[in-house]
Amino acid sequence: MLFKIIAVGKLKDKALAAKTAEFEKRIQAFGKLEVVELKDGTKEKECARILEALEKERGLIIVLSEEGAELTSQAFSGVISSANRKLIFVIGGPYGLSDEVKKRAEKVLSLSKMTFTHEMCRFFLTEQIYRAIAIAKGIKYHND
Amino acid sequence: MLFKIIAVGKLKDKALAAKTAEFEKRIQAFGKLEVVELKDGTKEKECARILEALEKERGLIIVLSEEGAELTSQAFSGVISSANRKLIFVIGGPYGLSDEVKKRAEKVLSLSKMTFTHEMCRFFLTEQIYRAIAIAKGIKYHND
Repeated sequence: MLFKIIAVGKLKDKALAAKTAEFEKRIQAFGKLEVVELKDGTKEKECARILEALEKERGLIIVLSEEGAELTSQAFSGVISSANRKLIFVIGGPYGLSDEVKKRAEKVLSLSKMTFTHEMCRFFLTEQIYRAIAIAKGIKYHND
Repeated sequence: MLFKIIAVGKLKDKALAAKTAEFEKRIQAFGKLEVVELKDGTKEKECARILEALEKERGLIIVLSEEGAELTSQAFSGVISSANRKLIFVIGGPYGLSDEVKKRAEKVLSLSKMTFTHEMCRFFLTEQIYRAIAIAKGIKYHND
């Protein structure tokens, strides 16, 4: 399984960075995960950088956005295990993502109706990718 | 504002404990937050301990459960700021909560369709309580 996470800005919070790294490592045991942190700036600049980063991608592009569809962890696991191609996730910055970026995606996913910081989204998404793998592979993990 | 979080088990993960403590401290600047960690055990024993802890409570009891209603952070802020009484939140352990506990609650709240560990729920809930206060009081905070 090949995964890529394209995020705007660095994970500055040390505790969240540690938790995210922990799940990135867990994912690496089952596939390849590449994380790209784009430079932050204005919404326009950030979205231009995302589109540029997506230009050469041919996999399944999933963009995280509050207006996206919510999935259960089981359904998310189904998406990941049935994709049969690289999965590219996009997490915007605090200003969110332009319609152009959302149009470039095959799926727009919402992690919750509640609003979280984009740093928290990095952690949630990484944990959910690992949980999705655990569900698909029948690996014992909390609450699955 | 008076808040109480009744949780089953301790927050053992150091990074999540640090993040949760950070938001508990932020909440304390605007009200009183009491956190009670009940001893874990079988689902039956955990739920009996929760019901016992709830016995003397007269505030608005909100139980976290996957089958609960999802709220936006704005709507959650509305619930908190219009409650005019103590808010008591209940987070179960990995086995979940009995119907008896759910019936004791005035509201059953779901943080996401996705499943998270109960330790992650502690952190998410604490952050959302702070975010709710920030929204209600017009305090500048990420993504609100």
